[in-house]
Amino acid sequence: MLLAGALEKSHKLISTLLKPGDKAVDATAGNGKDTLLLAHLVGSSGKVYSVDIQTEAIKKTSALLKTKGFLDRVELIQADHSHLSRLVPVPVKAVMFNLGYLPGGDHNIITRPESTIKAVESAINITEPGGLITIVAYHGHPGGKEELEALEGYLANLDQEKITVLEYRFLNQVNNPPVLLTLEMET
Amino acid sequence: MLLAGALEKSHKLISTLLKPGDKAVDATAGNGKDTLLLAHLVGSSGKVYSVDIQTEAIKKTSALLKTKGFLDRVELIQADHSHLSRLVPVPVKAVMFNLGYLPGGDHNIITRPESTIKAVESAINITEPGGLITIVAYHGHPGGKEELEALEGYLANLDQEKITVLEYRFLNQVNNPPVLLTLEMET
Repeated sequence: MLLAGALEKSHKLISTLLKPGDKAVDATAGNGKDTLLLAHLVGSSGKVYSVDIQTEAIKKTSALLKTKGFLDRVELIQADHSHLSRLVPVPVKAVMFNLGYLPGGDHNIITRPESTIKAVESAINITEPGGLITIVAYHGHPGGKEELEALEGYLANLDQEKITVLEYRFLNQVNNPPVLLTLEMET
Repeated sequence: MLLAGALEKSHKLISTLLKPGDKAVDATAGNGKDTLLLAHLVGSSGKVYSVDIQTEAIKKTSALLKTKGFLDRVELIQADHSHLSRLVPVPVKAVMFNLGYLPGGDHNIITRPESTIKAVESAINITEPGGLITIVAYHGHPGGKEELEALEGYLANLDQEKITVLEYRFLNQVNNPPVLLTLEMET
């Protein structure tokens, strides 16, 4: 396939942007895959802040980083991601989100519209000019569609002089593949 | 900018796909820019079929190709693009569309939902497995939004086993930048 899926596309964009020494945030650590990518890209001179409210996610991410020898360049933070500026030294070059529920975890614990929008707002506030925010939104679960629509509504009203918002979505897939929302901060 | 605009993104995808010797179609020749890209990519052993209903577009495209020495590898066809299979030897590797009106031309002559959907349907029928159809849809003019919505509705119902449909659009731009719709044919 020439057309990348949402997750793969987010990884491509982040890989094009980040350089060794950069600082980046994984706002939804989950199983740790985005954190692993970020840790790889920022190198030993960079720093990744990996946030999740669930103990299970922090454990999984920690274990994954350990096997790759990346624990020293990642700060794991168990907290609500609604106020990233309180959790992370600013500014950072990139922030990654995965919205939905923790794969293999409790499906009743999902990201919700209000806290998601707060979290994205706080991500905008800590991302430097030229930086990137990627949001991979799973929306096949109950509440997922509402969360995506609320988020789209919020993003559509952002000032285009400051931020470019791109939506990347598959139109004819019956299994609800994730949508990618990308925010590029103007320089 | 890391995020390419719709037109630039369509050119990138087509450039990744097409090789010398390929056959491709510009279904809306317009000012000839897509035809020029296609002619460059397919090389002297390939062939481009460039279709437009307007005399002005055929003239502009012809003049542009002449300056680049590409006239021999392009067949210019002044006709309605609703039935591409009648106009073009099949199959082809790629078909490009620009929906809206001819830049610098008569703004009353616009592409319309019914004929656009027929044309996209005929493009699907002539594109080989693994091939690509790109549609850059300008929608800021009267009727543009309706055309885009009708097209999205049609594309959302295509069989995902045969075609992957990706939409690429900017959410917060007040000047209605074009939307890119890409159809990748399964192999």
